[in-house]
Amino acid sequence: MAGVEEQLLVVLYLFAIAGAVGLVASRYPRLQYTTGLLVAGLLVSLVGSPVDVELTSEFILLALLPALIFNDAVTIDVDAFRENLLPILALAVVGLLVSIAIIAVAGVTVYGFTLAVALLFGAIIMPTDPVSILAVFEEIGVPERLAVLVEGESLLNDGVSIVVYSTVLAIIVEAESQGVAVADIVAPRVFLVDVTVGIFVALVGGALVGAAVGYVAHELIVLVDDELTAVVISVLVAYGVYLFLDLLGSSGVIGTLTAGVFLASRPGRKGVSPETRFTVEAIWGYAAFVANTLLFVALGIVTPFDLILQYELEIVGAIVLVFVARAVVIYPLVGLLNRWIDSPLSVSYQHVLAWSGIHASTSIALVLGVSEAFTGPLEEQLSALVFGVAAFTLLVNGTTMSALIDRVGISKQRPPQRLYQALVGQRYGVDAALETATHLHDDDRLSTSSFEAVTAVYRRQRRALETAIESLLDRHPSVREHEERLAQHRILVAEYQAIRDAIQRGDIGSDVGERLLADVQVELDRVLTDEWSVEEPLPPQFDPYWRRQLAKAGVSLDDDTGSRGDDTNNSGGDTNR
Amino acid sequence: MAGVEEQLLVVLYLFAIAGAVGLVASRYPRLQYTTGLLVAGLLVSLVGSPVDVELTSEFILLALLPALIFNDAVTIDVDAFRENLLPILALAVVGLLVSIAIIAVAGVTVYGFTLAVALLFGAIIMPTDPVSILAVFEEIGVPERLAVLVEGESLLNDGVSIVVYSTVLAIIVEAESQGVAVADIVAPRVFLVDVTVGIFVALVGGALVGAAVGYVAHELIVLVDDELTAVVISVLVAYGVYLFLDLLGSSGVIGTLTAGVFLASRPGRKGVSPETRFTVEAIWGYAAFVANTLLFVALGIVTPFDLILQYELEIVGAIVLVFVARAVVIYPLVGLLNRWIDSPLSVSYQHVLAWSGIHASTSIALVLGVSEAFTGPLEEQLSALVFGVAAFTLLVNGTTMSALIDRVGISKQRPPQRLYQALVGQRYGVDAALETATHLHDDDRLSTSSFEAVTAVYRRQRRALETAIESLLDRHPSVREHEERLAQHRILVAEYQAIRDAIQRGDIGSDVGERLLADVQVELDRVLTDEWSVEEPLPPQFDPYWRRQLAKAGVSLDDDTGSRGDDTNNSGGDTNR
Repeated sequence: MAGVEEQLLVVLYLFAIAGAVGLVASRYPRLQYTTGLLVAGLLVSLVGSPVDVELTSEFILLALLPALIFNDAVTIDVDAFRENLLPILALAVVGLLVSIAIIAVAGVTVYGFTLAVALLFGAIIMPTDPVSILAVFEEIGVPERLAVLVEGESLLNDGVSIVVYSTVLAIIVEAESQGVAVADIVAPRVFLVDVTVGIFVALVGGALVGAAVGYVAHELIVLVDDELTAVVISVLVAYGVYLFLDLLGSSGVIGTLTAGVFLASRPGRKGVSPETRFTVEAIWGYAAFVANTLLFVALGIVTPFDLILQYELEIVGAIVLVFVARAVVIYPLVGLLNRWIDSPLSVSYQHVLAWSGIHASTSIALVLGVSEAFTGPLEEQLSALVFGVAAFTLLVNGTTMSALIDRVGISKQRPPQRLYQALVGQRYGVDAALETATHLHDDDRLSTSSFEAVTAVYRRQRRALETAIESLLDRHPSVREHEERLAQHRILVAEYQAIRDAIQRGDIGSDVGERLLADVQVELDRVLTDEWSVEEPLPPQFDPYWRRQLAKAGVSLDDDTGSRGDDTNNSGGDTNR
Repeated sequence: MAGVEEQLLVVLYLFAIAGAVGLVASRYPRLQYTTGLLVAGLLVSLVGSPVDVELTSEFILLALLPALIFNDAVTIDVDAFRENLLPILALAVVGLLVSIAIIAVAGVTVYGFTLAVALLFGAIIMPTDPVSILAVFEEIGVPERLAVLVEGESLLNDGVSIVVYSTVLAIIVEAESQGVAVADIVAPRVFLVDVTVGIFVALVGGALVGAAVGYVAHELIVLVDDELTAVVISVLVAYGVYLFLDLLGSSGVIGTLTAGVFLASRPGRKGVSPETRFTVEAIWGYAAFVANTLLFVALGIVTPFDLILQYELEIVGAIVLVFVARAVVIYPLVGLLNRWIDSPLSVSYQHVLAWSGIHASTSIALVLGVSEAFTGPLEEQLSALVFGVAAFTLLVNGTTMSALIDRVGISKQRPPQRLYQALVGQRYGVDAALETATHLHDDDRLSTSSFEAVTAVYRRQRRALETAIESLLDRHPSVREHEERLAQHRILVAEYQAIRDAIQRGDIGSDVGERLLADVQVELDRVLTDEWSVEEPLPPQFDPYWRRQLAKAGVSLDDDTGSRGDDTNNSGGDTNR
């Protein structure tokens, strides 16, 4: 803990710049905070920073990254994450490895790198950084699924690329120290096995360790039921798992991520009191904010301008190369995935995914690690390329994503829609408040008179909200449609679940059951993919399984279509009753 | 930022011990957290700590102390502080200096110190540490005024003693390096002038710098009106003012304290939005918790047992000496003060003040500073004395304060509050008894006639309790208010959690959701800061997000204010139905 004063001065200096950015951003609300921090750092660096800011690979990876990952883990939508695990894994593992291979080939042919250095460059430059993109998503509002895809991919591909990077870097350093060629250190086949095993260990080992630690931590927190002890435990889990896996030579990213997901109490998982959840989420939100603030200002300040100017043309080439490597992987890979997953990813989503490739904090941490391992012209060139690509993608992709989303038309939010959400969200809150008050009263922890006083306020608010919601729905049919769509989704999920349960109970055979489930799936897809309307909940010409079977058996329902929304069908149903 | 991994390991190690203390404390609610941390640290130190923990004077004073002081500053009751400024200043300046003089005389005569070393010892040992005492106060509840006196004295006397300490230490080091006697370096008259000027500069200069910086920061925060920028500004203020004054050679304590008071928005001072206040207070609360956790575990671990055993007898002497020096100052000084101030301090208060002399974190930081300046038998002796007194006062005064307060009868929980708790507690018991009897009866393990006989008694008791509770609440509005406040807190947390769940389910977007959450936080803040009432649950002029959005959309609710408690709102809602 030596040099406290110097460390404190550096942190205060970075915070001073961040404070200035905050002041400016309050005048120009369109300015994104992280972009502002980066630009401020770049400007300070241009005029010459009065304070010497050092940013080490170790500091980014060990001190800042776990806080960012753990905060993502405790706030991520776990259900959406699990539902989209297949495409996320495909993008983060297969997609990443293929794009690293593309970069490696291009690195050898275009930049004249050796294969080892070209692979290192690929592993450094390809992991994506969610921070700025997610900030945009939050601001303009995009469908949950898109956000989870981008967030999940960024989290997991960090873990995977760190494995490739560590393996390659160790080999290069070893070859350098022995003064021999890389090929003498390791055969390609051995290398591939090493990387594959490393990725497997990082993914499966990280998930196992993280799940075990996160589960135990969750149980401990339930047992103790004290907010501040829960905070202490969560800090131990977030950094402990990361450091443990790191010391074992694996990547801690997946471990910390899994531990965070298991530690956080989710709706449906009971035990952790709301106060404790509230405190744990709040403190990690602040920690991530501080980590981001320090990171982006420092990134700006340590950007080596002279190097970037020196390698100008090569950087432009690298930017194009990185974009191409991402795009030629995303489109075919998603096209392939769409055959396997239930609800396909639309072309609009693919555009956003391709454009979401911001290569910043992890890439810079990794290239700083290279500088610490060996120096020379090669290291200078790698630094220039990585800092150049990072600055470009942060400044260009980050700021244009909003326009792209508008263009492809997947922004979720229209003004009445937002108002509707505000009212509905508040109604959830009021209902929960009324319910809790009733519980407290029933448990004799609130006297009748106090209960009346407290709930009168909430009941009035409930009525006001109800009125506002109804008048909003009357005035905006699109909002009503959206509400119906959400409800329809819930209802279909319940229908799906009931059929599933019947299969599991053995009431219906799984062959018949699967057909019924497939029918519900068709409707769910329509609801999810914006092709739904109350008037026509099913695709035209769609004939569900049970109707086809009825027709085969010669039973007539006196209606001519299979549509549920059809009036004839409706009356037919009544007659049958 | 070198050695990130080592620093992280030490912090995780301290947190692991703290987590274990938290687990134990959850089983034994009488155990105080800070005392538990210290004892755990001592135990680890006894068996031999596997991790090498280093605690430097610089780390305590520059990294931990500003967070603790600033957190006190933004949460202290400013009105009570100002009203009691005269006794606080008298205790912290006059009282401290007189008791240092007593220690100095005793140090020369009893311990055979030179006058300079004896003065240094006095300046090191006499500042008081509020942490543990305030924790007890919070737990058992004492009058606001007593808490402010103890807290205010502890905060200010840190600043004053650091001045005396620095002046004396500089002279001793100078004399040592020149190999001459202290008397050759400085004449007593010059020394006294130096100390007086130093204290004046620390108090007045610190207050001026702190007030100016705090005021500007407050205006900036109002201007920006963004929670996270406010956090950045508050960090800059807390540490910036401290470091600035420290670099100027003055004590930063008073500066940071004053800056915090001026920065924090107080009731009556408008401008800073409730959301921002909540966020700033929350983050400093967490920072202080982390600082305290690290501090007390580390204090335990670095306590030099062998030295303490070696200087056993001298330590017992020092403990007696320190108590006497505090007592012979407190009683006459307060007696004198009582002639000047409007509402005199009772003898009970004087006992508590005399017993509140815990001499821990600042004293240890200062004696560690001595070890860093020069080593030798003298330094060893000082360390042993200070660590001995610190451990004794923390363990003995901290744990017996509660008994003393009960004894002198100034606990805040007045009879009706206690009666209410007795009635409610009994009602829990009766309800459980009735429930068990019903279960036994339902399970046919209790005949109907026996069941009737047993429960008749309990039902009568239940009715009597119910009547008693209602009449108690009618007669003592303060009890009712307390009950309502507790319930309201639970209800608001439920409301918060429901909105958070809706965000996670994807029912509402996170941007809209965050606004709704911020509104709930405003109410939570009011409940926590005693500014709440059932009649007016929201701050005046506060307009929650959903109402602002409704107004923007032109939807009228036929009410003229945004207040939940407004009756017009009520009838408006009814009419619309």
